[in-house]
Amino acid sequence: MAVVVMKFGGTSVADTERIERVALHVKREVDAGNQVAVVVSAMAGTTNQLVEWVREISPLYDAREYDSIVASGEQITAGLLAVALQSKGVSARSWQGWQIPIHTDETHGAARISHIDGARLRARLGQGEVAVVTGFQGVEPEHNRIATLGRGGSDTSAVAVAVALDADVCDIYTDVDGVYTTDPRIVPEAQRIPRISYEEMLEMASLGSKVLQTRSVELAMVYDMRLRVLSSFAEPEQLPAADVGTLENTGTTVCSEDEIVESEVVSGIAYAKDEAKVTILKLEDKPGVAARIFGPLAEAAINVDMIVQNVTPDGAHTDLTFTVQSTELPRALEVIEQVKRDLGNFEVRSSDDVVKISIIGIGMRSHAGVAAQMFKTLSHKGINILAISTSEIKVSVLINADYAELAVRALHEVYGLDAQ
Amino acid sequence: MAVVVMKFGGTSVADTERIERVALHVKREVDAGNQVAVVVSAMAGTTNQLVEWVREISPLYDAREYDSIVASGEQITAGLLAVALQSKGVSARSWQGWQIPIHTDETHGAARISHIDGARLRARLGQGEVAVVTGFQGVEPEHNRIATLGRGGSDTSAVAVAVALDADVCDIYTDVDGVYTTDPRIVPEAQRIPRISYEEMLEMASLGSKVLQTRSVELAMVYDMRLRVLSSFAEPEQLPAADVGTLENTGTTVCSEDEIVESEVVSGIAYAKDEAKVTILKLEDKPGVAARIFGPLAEAAINVDMIVQNVTPDGAHTDLTFTVQSTELPRALEVIEQVKRDLGNFEVRSSDDVVKISIIGIGMRSHAGVAAQMFKTLSHKGINILAISTSEIKVSVLINADYAELAVRALHEVYGLDAQ
Repeated sequence: MAVVVMKFGGTSVADTERIERVALHVKREVDAGNQVAVVVSAMAGTTNQLVEWVREISPLYDAREYDSIVASGEQITAGLLAVALQSKGVSARSWQGWQIPIHTDETHGAARISHIDGARLRARLGQGEVAVVTGFQGVEPEHNRIATLGRGGSDTSAVAVAVALDADVCDIYTDVDGVYTTDPRIVPEAQRIPRISYEEMLEMASLGSKVLQTRSVELAMVYDMRLRVLSSFAEPEQLPAADVGTLENTGTTVCSEDEIVESEVVSGIAYAKDEAKVTILKLEDKPGVAARIFGPLAEAAINVDMIVQNVTPDGAHTDLTFTVQSTELPRALEVIEQVKRDLGNFEVRSSDDVVKISIIGIGMRSHAGVAAQMFKTLSHKGINILAISTSEIKVSVLINADYAELAVRALHEVYGLDAQ
Repeated sequence: MAVVVMKFGGTSVADTERIERVALHVKREVDAGNQVAVVVSAMAGTTNQLVEWVREISPLYDAREYDSIVASGEQITAGLLAVALQSKGVSARSWQGWQIPIHTDETHGAARISHIDGARLRARLGQGEVAVVTGFQGVEPEHNRIATLGRGGSDTSAVAVAVALDADVCDIYTDVDGVYTTDPRIVPEAQRIPRISYEEMLEMASLGSKVLQTRSVELAMVYDMRLRVLSSFAEPEQLPAADVGTLENTGTTVCSEDEIVESEVVSGIAYAKDEAKVTILKLEDKPGVAARIFGPLAEAAINVDMIVQNVTPDGAHTDLTFTVQSTELPRALEVIEQVKRDLGNFEVRSSDDVVKISIIGIGMRSHAGVAAQMFKTLSHKGINILAISTSEIKVSVLINADYAELAVRALHEVYGLDAQ
């Protein structure tokens, strides 16, 4: 018997038919003798409708009221799933954030969970009752106001609930049946990864794989909470019930490095299309000039990712290239225009016609030459590298967007990831 | 300066445009220096959609989950109205039942309010903040579960909040501009009643006038909370702000009898189309026979209204006529079929082709001959009376539905209610 937390996103609960299907997934776990808590998102479309109403009334809405309004979406799903479970003979009860309670800080709209009191839920689970918990939200205790966690918050809710319940596994049901070595739409030979480490998953998530939210993987890593990525569209009776001994038989298990016996040097190839490149030409090369560019960007809360600096042949000037999220490009350019008034005569060029390709793998730590192989492969295909950034377990390169698919396919093959 | 509670129903908040209009009504009161709490229903249609989803999943739903699901409707409206007020420069905050808290008993789906802690709301009102309160719901404190009040619960919420805040007046905004002497669609000469007593309003409400819910009027009567019925479709700037001295200038004020200086003998004519008549012929006339009919009906929770009993010429049998809500007619007939197996050989006839017409007025207490005038008027028009029931301040008759309009018009004229 295990304690299992199951999380279902908006497309998995988009209508009453799918909610009944989710109930069958939950029933399977209960019938196998597991104690189950379920975390649900709002029905797909509901949150958008609520947000639209708020914006119709006021584009400058109050974050507390916004939270109270949009939180109703998960409240509805949780109640409907509890009803669906009961109608299948499974004892169940819905729980909103304030009922458990799930305490958060005061950052309405992007709150962080500060504490979950798991005692009441654990007692109910012990009595064989399924707890259906509203994802994405908690209650800010000082003012007794609902606070939402921001985008992808339901994944984070699920992991936090799993930690509070000391669960054996946190199963994230989504519209794919696991994490793949790369996007199968680009590389048909892409393979499901049976096990992946938190660190690798974190890089995958922050580098463009949309399967899991970065914050939820971070939280799982801190508390060593095993995650599984499973498909909610699989037939409920075809998935085996969660059994900690055989987790790798289905989906992708995200776990600590020690649990992964054989690891590839490179586990996966990620790509992110939402990058934009900014180049500053003929910047006077004197101490502190980089700080005078990046300081104001940081103050404006614009995240700068890759940075490349060259000295021009005359030695008095420097060229600076960096990337930002393409949605933040207009704001970044505004900030730089202001800097230009102080720093004077440089040229600015920008483009969002770039893509970031990354190879990720904990095996890189112990294998030399992994990055070199990447650069060589791209060079053989005639692909120009615009910028590079690396970490202990990943290498990212910025290239022209036209070559994205070609680069991903070539790298997928060269690192031995293509299915046989 | 007064403390004013304003209540807006589902059609008054049906879309964001109407919610913004409601905000203007509230702003008018705030600008006049009043302290304001607003009680809102769900946007028209929302509750029906939620109920439909529940029923799709399970016709035998759990009342606690049902309550949690449907309560989201008012939560959305309250948040949206708070945002609309803020965008018009009015300080506002939404409040759900559990946040105030509004405590209820455990009768989920038809809960009664047991206690409202008005301290926090009063403090906020004192700081000039408008409190937007979700109608129709509270929290059952023992299990910390949302409980809804059942049909028309938002009116009751409004009166209860007004009592808890010791408000000067509770304004119920609806789609008519007051309570009329009768339905203006039948009698164009019908007039708005400027003041009406709680007792009369209670009779009007329970006899078919849909303007106010019976429970809310009962509660207002117990606590002597003055109500006003106003139109939410009036131009917000055309209505005068609530001023306790001049309440009778707009809408209908429902207040205690002592506050009504000049009262008509008959204040209004009500009619109810949802009556059905059951006649039992050739019932053996012996002691206890009525109890053996009405006992089982009461046990089946079927409300019997009017009862008429005649003895047949032979003296050994009796005919019994009574009325029930037409929606309950099939169940009533089933119960009677069962009784027939024990009591034997009587005949049953039924019809829902009847209507109940009532004259209502506190003046009846001090005026003789009011009922006689009603019977004479109907008789002059050739209308047959099928049953009669009376109370201290009303007389109701059951007649054939074909004559409903004719009867209402004749009575409206004879009691001097037609506008000059």
